[in-house]
Amino acid sequence: MAQEKARVLIIGTGGVGTMAAYALEIGGKAEVTAVMRSNYAAVEKNGIDIDSIEHGHDIKGWRPTAIRKTIPNIKQENLQPFDFILVTTKNIPDLLPTMVDVIEPAVTAGKTAIVLSQNGLNIEKPLIERFPTNPVISSISYIGATETSHGKILHDDGDAQKIGPFNNPGVSPEAAEEAARRYIAVYNAAGKLDITFDADVKFVRWRKLVYNASYNSVASVLRMDTARMRMSQHVIDDLIRPIMLEIVAAARANGVQLPDDVPDKVTSDAEKGNFMEIETIVGEPLREGEAKGVPMPTLRTIYGLLKGIQLQVKEKKGLWEAKFTPDNPYQ
Amino acid sequence: MAQEKARVLIIGTGGVGTMAAYALEIGGKAEVTAVMRSNYAAVEKNGIDIDSIEHGHDIKGWRPTAIRKTIPNIKQENLQPFDFILVTTKNIPDLLPTMVDVIEPAVTAGKTAIVLSQNGLNIEKPLIERFPTNPVISSISYIGATETSHGKILHDDGDAQKIGPFNNPGVSPEAAEEAARRYIAVYNAAGKLDITFDADVKFVRWRKLVYNASYNSVASVLRMDTARMRMSQHVIDDLIRPIMLEIVAAARANGVQLPDDVPDKVTSDAEKGNFMEIETIVGEPLREGEAKGVPMPTLRTIYGLLKGIQLQVKEKKGLWEAKFTPDNPYQ
Repeated sequence: MAQEKARVLIIGTGGVGTMAAYALEIGGKAEVTAVMRSNYAAVEKNGIDIDSIEHGHDIKGWRPTAIRKTIPNIKQENLQPFDFILVTTKNIPDLLPTMVDVIEPAVTAGKTAIVLSQNGLNIEKPLIERFPTNPVISSISYIGATETSHGKILHDDGDAQKIGPFNNPGVSPEAAEEAARRYIAVYNAAGKLDITFDADVKFVRWRKLVYNASYNSVASVLRMDTARMRMSQHVIDDLIRPIMLEIVAAARANGVQLPDDVPDKVTSDAEKGNFMEIETIVGEPLREGEAKGVPMPTLRTIYGLLKGIQLQVKEKKGLWEAKFTPDNPYQ
Repeated sequence: MAQEKARVLIIGTGGVGTMAAYALEIGGKAEVTAVMRSNYAAVEKNGIDIDSIEHGHDIKGWRPTAIRKTIPNIKQENLQPFDFILVTTKNIPDLLPTMVDVIEPAVTAGKTAIVLSQNGLNIEKPLIERFPTNPVISSISYIGATETSHGKILHDDGDAQKIGPFNNPGVSPEAAEEAARRYIAVYNAAGKLDITFDADVKFVRWRKLVYNASYNSVASVLRMDTARMRMSQHVIDDLIRPIMLEIVAAARANGVQLPDDVPDKVTSDAEKGNFMEIETIVGEPLREGEAKGVPMPTLRTIYGLLKGIQLQVKEKKGLWEAKFTPDNPYQ
């Protein structure tokens, strides 16, 4: 008897989320519901066009099992529970509503496994607090995939992920690992991809941070692409490499032995996109390192700059007003 | 017998240069030749309009004794020597031609005193090398004056300057001081202004750097104005104050005892404009401090960022090409 298809809800259908939806569906072991925001109308009308280095360059008008504009409410809509919720949105904990609030109506306690395909540290903590009986799974992705316009995806670097369970005290290690391995099996049914189990989630996440906290954060401050950064001696010597070494030191102080050649290897990692999740990618590693006495002056400076840039974004969106009051000069 | 008027050549007629031209002329002790570039045509046609907090809000169509589009060539044009050349342009030593090359045809050896109204360290060195018998004079200015459009000046903060001679081994200290004091006397003939002699040029310049290297450089990286920076706790605590303390430490290691309250006092200094002269305002103090063993990690990070931004500017202007060559990856 064929196993029932896994029900997967995907939040965030940019490049990474859409390529996950595609791989999960074509493997035949999952049916995907995708929540779309800005691209909903375009995809409802024309489906999704994909130019993929792994699945073919001329995929036209593809659709997952279901698309929606809103998060499903399992109870109110009387839906079957989801086996997995895959979250690929940016993780910006200082903006409301938080991701935890957003997904809550779609989570079935004790059943739904939540897969976080996001970089950075401590992203699992608010989820484990709110959903103490649900497996929470880490996916660190090295894919290159971009939504070039609504419903058009360019997938130009192979789908590689390292997946493993976060430690959730309310879920047995065996159940957490089983959920992670089932997700991998369902995903890998698409074939040809490089989706692997890695139990050492902390190591995998700190290692990826060596790249994110250096290249991504400096790219955001400079508004400069990675290729140009690598051509500038000052950017590499005064910024990228010092930050990498600070992250390696902070990781070691937190029990994660990144090898000495990580900075060199990481520089040749490929990654597209330069969004910036300040707290999880810069703030958290900075706090984890400094709490253990590691000097991280370069990353602290970058942190201050990114917070300043974020304040400008908030002002543009009407979330912060430049008003000086002598009693409370700081925001 | 009335003393002959001082012949003053002014290079750079933005806000600071134009207000100097105006003060020097109305005092009656100088005749000014102003070299104009982008604003030449507008000023030749309509003169200069000035809205000044010190000289009157409704000055219309004013003109100095002479305006020119090119640097005078004393020998070729058979001109009387200049007593003073006032330089108010940005000081960007890594772009060609340098300021020294530009002014050379207007300098009469052993006669013309060169007044540098520019911030930063070691700006006098290339001048002293090229013009070993000419007094070189430091002016640190606290004026607020902006050219809002060609030939329109808003002067909204009082003209205050601390002036003194740089040490030029080929000029006696007495002659250097006399040149500085004569310039001050000619300038102060305009009355009401705050132009004073200060022999301790090193102290004055390092003190001003506490402001320039912090507020100006972070403003350039963030593209954020000073008012907003002062409202952002992260910008002040993680960037501005650490840089100020690094400059104070670097100054002390170089024999300049800035008082402890300088960072607080400097924060209330007023200054308009946020141009960035990376090498003189950030690079030189960084090298002077680190050479004495002072850790300056925040300013080093800012330096790397500013060099990255400068590379982008150079690329836009066609002065740098983003081309990766494996043998020589860095520019």
